[in-house]
Amino acid sequence: MVLKLKVKNLPIYGAENHAFLHWKDGRKLNLLGGERIKVSTRFKSKTYIVKIDKEGNLVKEGEIVLSQTSASTKTYFKDGCIVQVKPVESPKSKHIIKKKIEGKELSSAEIKQLVEDIYYDRLDKIELAGFITAVYIQGYSIRETTALTKEMYKYGDRITWPFHWKIMDKHSIGGVPGNRTTPLVVSIVASTGLKIPKTSSRSITSPAGTADTIEVVAPVEFSANEIKRIVKKTNGCLVWGGALDLAPVDDKLIRVEHPLSLDPEGQVIASILSKKKSVGSKYVLIDIPYGEGSKVETLQEAEMMAEKFKIVGAKVDMVVESVITKGDEPIGRGIGPVLEMIDIIAVLHNRGPSDLKTKALELAGQILQMGGKGDIETAKQILQQGKAYKKFKEIIEAQGGSLHKAFTDMLGTATYEVKADQKGYITHISNKLIAEIAKRAGAPSFKGAGVYLYKKKGEAVKKGEVLFKIYAQNEKKLDYALEVLKKENPYRITQKQAYIVEKVF
Amino acid sequence: MVLKLKVKNLPIYGAENHAFLHWKDGRKLNLLGGERIKVSTRFKSKTYIVKIDKEGNLVKEGEIVLSQTSASTKTYFKDGCIVQVKPVESPKSKHIIKKKIEGKELSSAEIKQLVEDIYYDRLDKIELAGFITAVYIQGYSIRETTALTKEMYKYGDRITWPFHWKIMDKHSIGGVPGNRTTPLVVSIVASTGLKIPKTSSRSITSPAGTADTIEVVAPVEFSANEIKRIVKKTNGCLVWGGALDLAPVDDKLIRVEHPLSLDPEGQVIASILSKKKSVGSKYVLIDIPYGEGSKVETLQEAEMMAEKFKIVGAKVDMVVESVITKGDEPIGRGIGPVLEMIDIIAVLHNRGPSDLKTKALELAGQILQMGGKGDIETAKQILQQGKAYKKFKEIIEAQGGSLHKAFTDMLGTATYEVKADQKGYITHISNKLIAEIAKRAGAPSFKGAGVYLYKKKGEAVKKGEVLFKIYAQNEKKLDYALEVLKKENPYRITQKQAYIVEKVF
Repeated sequence: MVLKLKVKNLPIYGAENHAFLHWKDGRKLNLLGGERIKVSTRFKSKTYIVKIDKEGNLVKEGEIVLSQTSASTKTYFKDGCIVQVKPVESPKSKHIIKKKIEGKELSSAEIKQLVEDIYYDRLDKIELAGFITAVYIQGYSIRETTALTKEMYKYGDRITWPFHWKIMDKHSIGGVPGNRTTPLVVSIVASTGLKIPKTSSRSITSPAGTADTIEVVAPVEFSANEIKRIVKKTNGCLVWGGALDLAPVDDKLIRVEHPLSLDPEGQVIASILSKKKSVGSKYVLIDIPYGEGSKVETLQEAEMMAEKFKIVGAKVDMVVESVITKGDEPIGRGIGPVLEMIDIIAVLHNRGPSDLKTKALELAGQILQMGGKGDIETAKQILQQGKAYKKFKEIIEAQGGSLHKAFTDMLGTATYEVKADQKGYITHISNKLIAEIAKRAGAPSFKGAGVYLYKKKGEAVKKGEVLFKIYAQNEKKLDYALEVLKKENPYRITQKQAYIVEKVF
Repeated sequence: MVLKLKVKNLPIYGAENHAFLHWKDGRKLNLLGGERIKVSTRFKSKTYIVKIDKEGNLVKEGEIVLSQTSASTKTYFKDGCIVQVKPVESPKSKHIIKKKIEGKELSSAEIKQLVEDIYYDRLDKIELAGFITAVYIQGYSIRETTALTKEMYKYGDRITWPFHWKIMDKHSIGGVPGNRTTPLVVSIVASTGLKIPKTSSRSITSPAGTADTIEVVAPVEFSANEIKRIVKKTNGCLVWGGALDLAPVDDKLIRVEHPLSLDPEGQVIASILSKKKSVGSKYVLIDIPYGEGSKVETLQEAEMMAEKFKIVGAKVDMVVESVITKGDEPIGRGIGPVLEMIDIIAVLHNRGPSDLKTKALELAGQILQMGGKGDIETAKQILQQGKAYKKFKEIIEAQGGSLHKAFTDMLGTATYEVKADQKGYITHISNKLIAEIAKRAGAPSFKGAGVYLYKKKGEAVKKGEVLFKIYAQNEKKLDYALEVLKKENPYRITQKQAYIVEKVF
């Protein structure tokens, strides 16, 4: 059974691959809603999931209304064009998903099929959610993780570099507010002649991603060719990965992982490595923060994850090392794009928060070792001699930005200082609550919103001393941020100094 | 943060509880899409999931476009009314779902919260799919199944009956084409004075549900009060359950179970018992068909399921018995609404397919025993004396239908006879392929479409003899149905007669 229908597009961002049919057309094709159809012209075709308009308000008989899967997807069929519509059988990976749910290992051929079906939108969110849940419960073998990395890498943009270049990279598995080591690491590494084309994310659930922070001083959206030009000139870049189409299958899976708060380990590994491979990286350092309130809870989990990164990396021709770091409290003092940029500039001038500086130097040192260009001592010298600052300035300017911008003027003017209600020692600062306050204050969409931490873990505090300051976009957002404090205080203060393991690495 | 926006409704059947916001309003509330918002007036409120219109094509700034969750849901907020919109935290059951994914048993309080959040549409399909997948993998305890049954029963329509009435019921867990015992069982049971207010489903994935078949001779959509009137008059009814709002939480879960092809055992038990309890049934007989191609594969599984039905039933004050039947090939000869009705009328005249008659008598006998009104012998007499036919006619007429209708005229005129390509014995008929052919021929939306089986399992066949006949809505649908045969034959014919276990019960 085939029908010919006229296309009307419904351009909603975040909508799924849904096709709306008038109920009369649905009946002609024996469709009740929820089934898959293939929509095609002589030149191309695409799978959609049927929704039936029971009242004919959105769709007239003879029409088909198509929604788009994302903002970057161009309209696939033009308005007014005539398409053939026919029911299709379930995609093959429906059975593959069921197999994973049953707890069986998937073959490489099955993972290939699955990734292909995800790329072409042949599976809907319900099926992807079932799959991700099954992966979380049943786990992936190393073989499955490797196959997934390879298959996800096959789709989307890929950047290639001269063969003899050593392409370095770093990635933090995230979850720690203020952990803005990337601009420091990139600047140090790039000053040694190693190449580090760093793509970063914008914030999804945190007060700022590296891309949000860099955007305070420079544009971050570039095409693959523009990135090549910037890296050829400066050895590095600090751009937003989302402007490229890197391993798009991964993004489609992330869209269901996020609402379920699930990040199955194997999926995280495949996600990171397929994206790194897509930008042409060969040597990758992974930062795995662990501890209460970060994504990995225990040291043992972190160590197992590091081992798997190494093994899977080797199987896809990459050298992958990991650094396991404490991630149970915010790093640096500024949380939010502008406040984090203030920290970064201070560290580049060899001042600033010592935890941020120490961590950045450790990471940079490790990457220099991987690239055969020195170690942490080299990194320290580069920072002290002002070479890192110079390189950072070069990269920012190559991206069309400037450090002469008075970005502190961008700070939110609705502020509030939270003071200690007793004297004592800070024994804990909650990642989650600090992030929540900064987000409610307007970060990251308002760059100048966030939280500045005057006191860090282990420090002594007197009653009435300022613990942290909130910078909000406006009074309304400040009130909204302050609501968090009514329920719970992000700072834990005790009378006695707790024993604190300060050794981070 | 609260915004005031103007409502516009988007009435699409099958759409989810989505609220579309203009990107500028999204930014004001710090929303990127995917978050939950509470939409409220002074009098009522409802949770929606945010979609952001990045181009402003569907939603203008200051507006909010609301989709409906189902056809039966009335527009919740009127077009043009001003609502307050504010972000809300994740519903509590987000953590409850995560707990189930982690493999932990849920408390009764957690199941109460979960069912409430599902009822009020506070969870989206991704979360429900994650939950159902977890339930399938991790299973439910008896305690969880019981709590779920009780909680799902609390919402939606409920029918009550005079306290001293014995309300009987039956339910087949399905998966077998042509298994149309219900009209026969209801007619036999109702003629003894026992009450049997039977609600049935329309087909979702099969060529006909009982409601589709009854609709050949009578209307099936009635309100709770109309059902009471029909049962008071005739002791029974044969209506569509979907016209009522029975345990609606169950329907919301089924909407995600279906695309995943998952039916976790505990979920099936809670689903059936909560719906039966909602129509006021006290004595319920469950038909559990098992075997290749039916929902339960092995006898052992079927027995365990029967035991759980009994235990959970007792905990919710119902007497629940099960009959385990062979379900590996179609029952009766007609598949599709009209063809099944032909079988039913024949059996009511004490003729017709012997497997259908035998099974119906077994089930009816069992229910008579549960109600203290005889046994299978009683059921046989009722059928032979024409009392069952008389009762069936009474019920059909009380529902406003008639048996004088020449419904055989409704049969599809595009027909095709499939003949044996060799002589031998029928050793297997595929449920799945026969159902697929009947559906492609137009069943159940075209009542006269389907398949008539001239030969059943165990019978001898000569080369060239007709195995089955396809009745299609039109030539196009006939061709579409015949495509199935190109790939695989639903009949298996072998030279030697296989040993066949014909004892069904």
